[in-house]
Parts: sequence; structure tokens; C-alpha cells
Amino acid sequence: MKIPVVKKVLEANERIAEENRRLFAEHGVFVINLVSGPGAGKTTLLERTIKGLKGQFRFGVIEGDIQSTVDAERVASPGVSVVQINTGGACHLDGNMIRGALDKLDLGRLDVLIVENVGNLVCPVEFDIGEHCKVMLLSVSEGDDKPLKYPLIFHESRLLLINKMDLLPYVDFNVEKSRRESLKINPHLEIIEISCKTGDGLTSWFDWLREKVGER
Amino acid sequence: MKIPVVKKVLEANERIAEENRRLFAEHGVFVINLVSGPGAGKTTLLERTIKGLKGQFRFGVIEGDIQSTVDAERVASPGVSVVQINTGGACHLDGNMIRGALDKLDLGRLDVLIVENVGNLVCPVEFDIGEHCKVMLLSVSEGDDKPLKYPLIFHESRLLLINKMDLLPYVDFNVEKSRRESLKINPHLEIIEISCKTGDGLTSWFDWLREKVGER
Repeated sequence: MKIPVVKKVLEANERIAEENRRLFAEHGVFVINLVSGPGAGKTTLLERTIKGLKGQFRFGVIEGDIQSTVDAERVASPGVSVVQINTGGACHLDGNMIRGALDKLDLGRLDVLIVENVGNLVCPVEFDIGEHCKVMLLSVSEGDDKPLKYPLIFHESRLLLINKMDLLPYVDFNVEKSRRESLKINPHLEIIEISCKTGDGLTSWFDWLREKVGER
Repeated sequence: MKIPVVKKVLEANERIAEENRRLFAEHGVFVINLVSGPGAGKTTLLERTIKGLKGQFRFGVIEGDIQSTVDAERVASPGVSVVQINTGGACHLDGNMIRGALDKLDLGRLDVLIVENVGNLVCPVEFDIGEHCKVMLLSVSEGDDKPLKYPLIFHESRLLLINKMDLLPYVDFNVEKSRRESLKINPHLEIIEISCKTGDGLTSWFDWLREKVGER
């Protein structure tokens, strides 16, 4: 007698992520899965990006949080479609949560969709949501030992944004060391140093985004 | 026909956590589960605490990390028993991992055991490891919106250490707001402001620890 076995969680997720990916391709939307630990500055980056590229791209944002809508409220502005996902305890977004949020977005009217994942350096990395790439944000106040301690997120990201460079004089963070350790884990990783507070480096991030959207 | 059902993960964990708790009580060891997001300063706090209370308590440390032994190496010093747990991808410590680590510690020779959990504001909170209490570390560079976004960890902790107070002039962090929001979630939460860099506030934290160890 053969007993049917429910597929593993990650396999089931991969199937839905593929559906999402097909939808994104169909509508020509470039999708970023934005990941970081809590408080690295994801929402501020979103605010600056949407403002800085106003009129150039039609942005959509999916905000992933355990609860509350504070981030969605910060990002909401005329011409930006924002959907909040409250995971209700779950430590990451998965393909199915994104699939549900897509019903609330008109993909045909978007150029770029940025998904702000739950602040967590571990679990979000395991769950494909159908994105084109992962962009990781690391703030200098978190310390330069993070590549060594959370290697998977460095391995899986296409771009690392080192944020809060304005705090560099006040913290023990060796930029060269963090670059070296990150590239040891992922030699293809692109790295841009930014400060969402002063605006330093944001032009390079905008250029990166423009290039990637152009290739979509 | 009755089919045996494997107990839920959290129930099974609770059973082992209870065993750990009994072992801790039997040997009179006060056990702290130290939780925070990545880079909030858990390991530095441990270094300062062990140094600051040298000769007063016999410390044991269990370091939880996805991989690497960098934190254990930082904490290791004469007279301190350190065990490293590499979770191999898992985003939190659980009762069974701690149970395994206890075989490597002589509980009869310890007064205080501090368990540094994986840097993660979500998952570690769900898993009891048999500790006396959770102590949460939040750095001011992470932002004062954290109670609103990660309420469970504030709810479950007995003490909140607001760390990196030396960075306060350079970041947007409202101490009063974070205190207010934290206490709204957990009215019994004790809160101490510290800077592991300058040493400010550490005396209050040492006093707190002395008091709790005295009550054990």
C-alpha cells in the first residue's frame, strides 16, 4: 500500500514561488526581496528610493511584518501601491503570502516591486518568493562579523548595501574586512556603501537598480 | 483504531525545557536566556559582565550561533566554562540543544549560566530552554519602533537592556517612546540603559544580576 506524503514545506513553497515568478515575468515587473536584521534601515531605504526615483519607475511595495502597519504607513505615498502582510508570528515571508498579496496589486501598472521581508537574517533566506534577486542591507552598527555568522544570506544575495555609513566614526566596523569576508562567501556579490541619513551612495544604488530594471 | 500522534514540536520542547529547569534548580544555577537581533551587542555585554563580576560569580556561557566559534572565542577566559552550539542553519536554540550542551558543563561549579541565543528577534522567543528569565538587548541604532514590530520578545522578557546609548546623539531613537511602548506590552518589564562601549549603566545591570542570583 502506498501512502501519500505531503510534500516538504520548502518544495511546496518553491512551486508557488515559480507561479509568482511567471506572473512577474508576464507583467515585466522587476522584483526585489529586501532582507536584513531588525533595524538595519529597510523602510528608510524604501522611502529614499521611492522619492529619489519618483517619475522614473512605478513602484509597488509589499511590507512584511509580524504585526502592525507602521512600515506600510511610512512608505505609502501618491502613486505607490503598498500592501501590508502581517505574518502573525511567522519569522519570514513565503511564496504563498506573496501570492495572496499579489491579488491586491495591479502588476500591469508596476515597473518595480520591492518586498520588505521580516527583519531577520536567518529564516527569510530559506524561502523563495519568486523574486529576481535578494538585496541585503547591513548597517555598520551591527558589526563586521556578520558574514562569518550569517553566511547564507550573503551567499544568496546579489547586492549588499552597507548602510548607516554616517555612524562609521562611532562604531567598530572594518569596511574592508566586511567586504573581504562577504566576497569570500559570495564572489559575485556586488557591494555599495550608503547612508540613508545623509544620502551618500544612494546614487550608486539608484544606478544599480536602473541597470537591473533595464535588463528585466 | 487509535493512531499515535507525535507531539507538537513546542510540546516536546517544553518537556525537555522542564528537565533542564530541574537540573538548574538542583545545582542552584541562575540561568539567563539572552536574546536580541543580530549585532545588538550580546557578546560584548557578556565580555563586560564576566570581567566586571570576576571573582563574584562562577560563570558559564553557552554560545548559540548558526555556525562559527567567533563568539565563544571572544568570551573564553580563565575560570569561565564556555560551550558553543552551532545550530547548522536553525534560527534559534531549543531545549534539546541546551540539554546536549549541559553534558559539557559542570553545573555544580557554576553560579550563573548565560545562554547567548542566535541573533533573531522572532524565533528564539518561542522556545523555552528552561531558563529563569529572558533578558533582551536592544541597541538604539535599531530604532524605537521595535516594541511595536516585535512585541512577543518584549512581552516575554524580564529585563530590557537598551544598549549603545553612546550612539544616541547620532541616531533617531526616542528613549522615552521606546520605554513607554515596551511597558505597554509588558508592564512588569524592567529597563536599564547601558553602553557596553563606555561602561555607562553597567553597574545597574550588575546590581540587577546580583539581586536575581541572590533570590535563586
